[in-house]
Amino acid sequence: MTRKDVLVRRDLLGTNKEIAAGIRKELRRRGILAVNLLSSPGSGKTALLEALADRLKGRCRMAVVEGDIETERDAERIRARGVAAWQITTGGACHLEAKMVAKVLADVPAAIDFLFIENVGNLVCPAGFDLGEGLRCVLLSSPEGDDKPAKYPQAFATADVLLLTKSDLIPLLPFDPDRAAREALAINPRLKVFCVSALRGEGMDGLAAFFVEALAAERAARA
Amino acid sequence: MTRKDVLVRRDLLGTNKEIAAGIRKELRRRGILAVNLLSSPGSGKTALLEALADRLKGRCRMAVVEGDIETERDAERIRARGVAAWQITTGGACHLEAKMVAKVLADVPAAIDFLFIENVGNLVCPAGFDLGEGLRCVLLSSPEGDDKPAKYPQAFATADVLLLTKSDLIPLLPFDPDRAAREALAINPRLKVFCVSALRGEGMDGLAAFFVEALAAERAARA
Repeated sequence: MTRKDVLVRRDLLGTNKEIAAGIRKELRRRGILAVNLLSSPGSGKTALLEALADRLKGRCRMAVVEGDIETERDAERIRARGVAAWQITTGGACHLEAKMVAKVLADVPAAIDFLFIENVGNLVCPAGFDLGEGLRCVLLSSPEGDDKPAKYPQAFATADVLLLTKSDLIPLLPFDPDRAAREALAINPRLKVFCVSALRGEGMDGLAAFFVEALAAERAARA
Repeated sequence: MTRKDVLVRRDLLGTNKEIAAGIRKELRRRGILAVNLLSSPGSGKTALLEALADRLKGRCRMAVVEGDIETERDAERIRARGVAAWQITTGGACHLEAKMVAKVLADVPAAIDFLFIENVGNLVCPAGFDLGEGLRCVLLSSPEGDDKPAKYPQAFATADVLLLTKSDLIPLLPFDPDRAAREALAINPRLKVFCVSALRGEGMDGLAAFFVEALAAERAARA
């Protein structure tokens, strides 16, 4: 990168940080827990949200912001579960930025508990952009391999939660969930780790309970 | 993006294009076919190269440039197959650029046939950067889902070859290879499509034969 690139990037990140701080303050005021989901394409972010929607139904109110380069597909899948969803199509950009989320926030109803933000499928670039979330979750699906945390460290270093997804495929694959967790924890010891299968349900009740507890803790801290 | 961002990006891409043109000319002079492999993390790029190394052994000489954000792991896997490999660690950057490949090129022995370049695992950013390759291959693994081409169109629009990888898992997954291929071909009708499993060998002999033919065609065009 040239000096000019570095300066532009610093400007961009500085502005993003300010907007993210504003979002965080607004969400706290409304008592909403925002969760930013980061992963490679196809790690199962949308399937996870579908499975969570079924488990939180009747207990908590959720809404979803979907980030994609193109198409409304993911928002349509979420709406089909009876959950409000807004699609942000970045038209080429490789990550969501706080200003994109801020625009949607005006439309989000006040009476919700969770705002899940599904980032663009990319294990690299989204890690550098705070969206004002209360929790950041990084997903690593078993078919991607257990060697990914050290190769893509920033996403794991900046997350609060590691979700090892597609656990139903583990018996068929050269994937050791303990190795993946160990490697991620070496980068970030405060990661809370869950092993889940959105398709088969394994681990999903525990994860839903964790989010409900995190919401209660967030609200207690605010009071 | 601000106007300043756009100008910096235009500078960067312009410089990259010039360096890539120089690499392409040099490779053509040496009679080497360079293949740029693009995909999400964990789509099986390194496993594909291991399987190709076994199939090209004794017929053709190959070398590999490995792009990763961190670690020498992939280059070590390739070297274990008796193939020369250079690791480029970008230290945070989300894609390879032509200038990184140009630096390595001086060390690549003259007497090789193929130079495989494994890009950083990222289905978005590497698509914008020409590395001087003769062929660009995009990999889509079955666990990622058959809905990815329309969601990440640039990688599919700029590739010559689509490799549907981990075909051995297809019977276990909600993945329709025909749908994935159809959607990619709607974006880019000139894509040559292969369905392969590097782990089980399915489709690998055909893919190796395709690369050998492409090398012969490249050399014939040069003559």
